[in-house]
Amino acid sequence: MRVTTLSIGDELTHGAILDRHGGWFAGRFDALGCDLVEHRMVGDDRDLIAASIRELAASSDLLVVTGGLGPTADDLTREALADALGESLVLDPEALAALEDRFASRGRVLSESNRRQAHRPEHARSLPNANGTAPGLEARLGDSRIVVLPGPPHEMHPMFESVIASGIEPSADHEATIDINGYGLPESRAAERLGPLLERDRDPLVGIKVSWSILTASVRGTGVEAVARAIERHWHPLAYGRGATTLEEVVGGLLEQQGSTIATAESCTGGLLGGRITEVPGSSGWYGGGVVTYSNECKQQLLGVPAELLERHGAVSEQVAVVMAMEAARRFGADYALSTTGIAGPGGGGEHKPVGTVWIGGCDTTGDHPNAWARRFVFPGDRTWVRDRTVKSALQMLRLHILGFESPLLWEAEQS
Amino acid sequence: MRVTTLSIGDELTHGAILDRHGGWFAGRFDALGCDLVEHRMVGDDRDLIAASIRELAASSDLLVVTGGLGPTADDLTREALADALGESLVLDPEALAALEDRFASRGRVLSESNRRQAHRPEHARSLPNANGTAPGLEARLGDSRIVVLPGPPHEMHPMFESVIASGIEPSADHEATIDINGYGLPESRAAERLGPLLERDRDPLVGIKVSWSILTASVRGTGVEAVARAIERHWHPLAYGRGATTLEEVVGGLLEQQGSTIATAESCTGGLLGGRITEVPGSSGWYGGGVVTYSNECKQQLLGVPAELLERHGAVSEQVAVVMAMEAARRFGADYALSTTGIAGPGGGGEHKPVGTVWIGGCDTTGDHPNAWARRFVFPGDRTWVRDRTVKSALQMLRLHILGFESPLLWEAEQS
Repeated sequence: MRVTTLSIGDELTHGAILDRHGGWFAGRFDALGCDLVEHRMVGDDRDLIAASIRELAASSDLLVVTGGLGPTADDLTREALADALGESLVLDPEALAALEDRFASRGRVLSESNRRQAHRPEHARSLPNANGTAPGLEARLGDSRIVVLPGPPHEMHPMFESVIASGIEPSADHEATIDINGYGLPESRAAERLGPLLERDRDPLVGIKVSWSILTASVRGTGVEAVARAIERHWHPLAYGRGATTLEEVVGGLLEQQGSTIATAESCTGGLLGGRITEVPGSSGWYGGGVVTYSNECKQQLLGVPAELLERHGAVSEQVAVVMAMEAARRFGADYALSTTGIAGPGGGGEHKPVGTVWIGGCDTTGDHPNAWARRFVFPGDRTWVRDRTVKSALQMLRLHILGFESPLLWEAEQS
Repeated sequence: MRVTTLSIGDELTHGAILDRHGGWFAGRFDALGCDLVEHRMVGDDRDLIAASIRELAASSDLLVVTGGLGPTADDLTREALADALGESLVLDPEALAALEDRFASRGRVLSESNRRQAHRPEHARSLPNANGTAPGLEARLGDSRIVVLPGPPHEMHPMFESVIASGIEPSADHEATIDINGYGLPESRAAERLGPLLERDRDPLVGIKVSWSILTASVRGTGVEAVARAIERHWHPLAYGRGATTLEEVVGGLLEQQGSTIATAESCTGGLLGGRITEVPGSSGWYGGGVVTYSNECKQQLLGVPAELLERHGAVSEQVAVVMAMEAARRFGADYALSTTGIAGPGGGGEHKPVGTVWIGGCDTTGDHPNAWARRFVFPGDRTWVRDRTVKSALQMLRLHILGFESPLLWEAEQS
């Protein structure tokens, strides 16, 4: 099946928001065994939208359009679809009733601008939207099916699955792409380890990408499972999961299996590590809590880090990271603890401790004696990147510890 | 100047790599005062590329194409450009010499496949590429200028600046777009408040978008400052800043001005609120730390929340939110404190406390007597959305409190 897609919105063509729909459609249609021929992005221009709909519909079996269904005057996709179909807009009574219900259940009255959203081209069909006010639209133009979905991803994605994906029967010989995720290896080394697997004339075809420091190898074609396993061996033990699996899910799963718990003591990450751990539903099963000790006073008062230690070694030091992890484990009665202390920047760096220097501490009380340690990293990137990489390195460090591996991680520095 | 852009590559249409070029072009051309009419993304298909080049060139003064200039057999942009121009490919001696030099300087011999890269359509011009092997191409088709650049961003961006941006004189009357951000108002109400400002035939043109619950009104055209101020009045007091300004920056700025400090006590957000506050460089000036009390035991042990209160009202209650905020302020010696306790889902919801129910507590010790309160919200969306909206609502709540406003916020529920 030949598919085309169209994203609409001035915020996209003016660069205020990155259009991620094209890439998302590409991935989903690839998994469904469909051929995404073309994706377009245009602004809120009624004539241009109508012309694009006509052109794309003429060159595909299915055209998916997103955006421009909102309640405001610059949302023109409904009108443009009607133009493309040569129809006028009519009020859809069911869509209107659904909108009124939605507003009533929230104690609000339907406004005139939201009422616009219940309109559809005469021979189009309204598609219910469980997560927002804008119904979708479905119509036929020539031999092509046109589906229009709202722009916000959390509204669009579920509608895509129910309206589009559920109706596509993957062809018998189509194998779903397998994505293998890893963390802690430079991209160039990750590629070298795969060697000839990356050659472009092979089947299955393997591609590597890096997004927010997470390496992903995508395997598409025939016999993907065997190649996926080979990649997991080559990246061992830094490959941590497939598909949408996150590091925090993997760590949570290990803790749940063991019936263990974890506590956190965060300085430079300011709560992000706890935030990441609790992103996983059910994390109350392994995470009781943590402290954010951003200032030195807090480190002393909440965790009992000795003032003398802070003075002698500085807050960003192996000693302080170790005490933070030990005290977090002790005070929360947790089996494991992770601590972070570092210089996220932009200020605060020095010759011996440049911006990006982070100590990540760990503590394991599951053995006969509590065992605490810390590892030093020098992360590249700005404040946001340093903090994100700290969180990911801490989770990978705990995962490797629990599994019994001692692998150095990317950006880990010699002990100093 | 009307501009169109085209990204080429099977890795884009198959979803292996996210096409970021469209968004990048959108931002750069907006800053240069050019009108990006349309961006397209197609795979490595010679006929489709040629057809897209012809169509886009016909509808714009400048067409920028990226990708498909590599040395391998699936790189077909050179051939497709020649097709679109109705010309054949010839070897460019200067481009070939530059390629041979590049390879020689690395001790490598030019391969036959790399030699292909020195070809250009007869009347096109080769553009030197300082950061890679693929030269760019420049040609005219009708009234349109076509520039073809290599796909890798670190090769494409410098060539864009030297070949394209440097030649564009921003028109004297070009005013930079102003973005006004707000939080806590539904999009439909935000639009109604702007009324005729949103009409499509006006100058300046105003558009509204919502990204992760943040409202942004973009004002582009002539006389943008006066209209931006009008929007800030209409959204008052929920408009909090312009451009890339974040809520956490605004709250941090207010605290810094006052010389005040803040502490946090988080349950359902698990550390995300502290993480957000410390995203701002210099936040150690107003944030000492916080606690993440995810379990009831932690709420009792770290914050002294009475067991009786937890039993009688439940952890997700006004009473518990108030005590958490008060105790955080007291234990950290902070002027203000924020607390969160709620049901982020997917499990844990009930009839009276559905998933999305969150109490946000506040405490202000700057007056003669400490003042603590809590507000109830029922946030729509999944776990990630509920937690993100909790953090933003807490920050907006504190901002309004410090400024002395008492505005209800979106998703705030009647007290029960």
